[in-house]
Amino acid sequence: MLIHTARIRVRYKETDQMGLVYHANYFTWFEIARIELLDHLGCPYVELEKEDFLLPVLSCNATFHLPAFFDDRLDVEVKIEEMPLVRIKACYEVRRNTDLIATGATKHAFVSGEGKVIRPPQKFIDLAKKKFGN
Amino acid sequence: MLIHTARIRVRYKETDQMGLVYHANYFTWFEIARIELLDHLGCPYVELEKEDFLLPVLSCNATFHLPAFFDDRLDVEVKIEEMPLVRIKACYEVRRNTDLIATGATKHAFVSGEGKVIRPPQKFIDLAKKKFGN
Amino acid sequence: MLIHTARIRVRYKETDQMGLVYHANYFTWFEIARIELLDHLGCPYVELEKEDFLLPVLSCNATFHLPAFFDDRLDVEVKIEEMPLVRIKACYEVRRNTDLIATGATKHAFVSGEGKVIRPPQKFIDLAKKKFGN
Amino acid sequence: MLIHTARIRVRYKETDQMGLVYHANYFTWFEIARIELLDHLGCPYVELEKEDFLLPVLSCNATFHLPAFFDDRLDVEVKIEEMPLVRIKACYEVRRNTDLIATGATKHAFVSGEGKVIRPPQKFIDLAKKKFGN
Repeated sequence: MLIHTARIRVRYKETDQMGLVYHANYFTWFEIARIELLDHLGCPYVELEKEDFLLPVLSCNATFHLPAFFDDRLDVEVKIEEMPLVRIKACYEVRRNTDLIATGATKHAFVSGEGKVIRPPQKFIDLAKKKFGN
Repeated sequence: MLIHTARIRVRYKETDQMGLVYHANYFTWFEIARIELLDHLGCPYVELEKEDFLLPVLSCNATFHLPAFFDDRLDVEVKIEEMPLVRIKACYEVRRNTDLIATGATKHAFVSGEGKVIRPPQKFIDLAKKKFGN
Repeated sequence: MLIHTARIRVRYKETDQMGLVYHANYFTWFEIARIELLDHLGCPYVELEKEDFLLPVLSCNATFHLPAFFDDRLDVEVKIEEMPLVRIKACYEVRRNTDLIATGATKHAFVSGEGKVIRPPQKFIDLAKKKFGN
Repeated sequence: MLIHTARIRVRYKETDQMGLVYHANYFTWFEIARIELLDHLGCPYVELEKEDFLLPVLSCNATFHLPAFFDDRLDVEVKIEEMPLVRIKACYEVRRNTDLIATGATKHAFVSGEGKVIRPPQKFIDLAKKKFGN
């Protein structure tokens, strides 16, 4: 399993006039957690793109359990539970201390610069295999 | 059934360095379609909020079938297929001409200014009932 | 002079918890007005980029006279008062009916895909000259 | 003088299809630096709002010297050079290592919840006076 927790501080810009975080911003936080997970794996996303691998979002969802507010410090945990092959599925939990704020998931595929679905980069496969213990 | 189609023109700000629309922006478009649907129902969201009804997003999802690009004119169709009671479910289809770009859904509840789930406003119920034919 | 007025409807996402429009969003509206001005000139930005001309923002400013609110219909006027040569300067006025909400300006240069400052595209020069009457 | 440097990591969402940071995002970074400056002063913005003080942006500007890219780590320095009375002026410098990426400024006034310009909160005045050495 690949797992990482990113620490987020809610920006003023991320609130709306309801006085809480605008829902679409959670997907940006999910992305921050994914980016940091790739860093910790040893496979930074910025380097993947330089080698012409893109990792677009194929689908995404989120469920909001409790509101989040400006200036909250939130933990955004991302987990990849199955060895990524063609498709990658990531799951997320957003917490404020022990309170569960939101859960969600995203699906991805590695895609070339021209938009074709491709095998993950070999470096990514090797590093992921180590973490998955096979 | 409540149904409405909003016309969107993709903003430059809505693209990212992949050269296409950043995924979280679709949820903003879904919201524009909802807002316009409420307008056409005769129950503008801005008036609901003035009467202390909020309509937060409880959960949301989207699936991306084809990329959307800067300057695209897109049709964002929103449908509410079941008479809204405590929960409201809306479904979305985003099209560029006849191409299906994305689909999605959001769930909502009417909430008071203090955050309590409440019955929809009577005006909304009356107008929706007419459209649902009962 | 090149002049155009775009009509904007304020999105919920563009508000923040002060209950009014978050200031940085005005720059996105300025851009929408610029894009529409180029359309009306006969020189759509999307086509300029296809021919490898970019028009990045070199500097920008805005002054906020009155708050703008969710659902406001605003007129965003953009004016280019001097024949654009290497630098282009655009000025903006945002109004709600007759109320002046904000003013601002942006400076731009045409840049090639590799980031070099270049002469504006000939088509743009020709069309602009006609409007400037020389 | 009040001075603070915030460390930013550029989010994917903050890029546009030019492959660099969309200009309006710098104003969000300026705000993050202001928020952190208030933290370090001992006067967190979230507490000011709880006491019904708002600090809206009256005007803002930015000049872009070099592009910033996805994943860049940037230092956003904010300086308040004059003892804040009714108006507060903050200046910004954004750097990537020693490269100057952008400069800018914002003007603010303390405003009550009803939108009236008011004296800064006493706690803020006292803390600022100490830093300004009078």
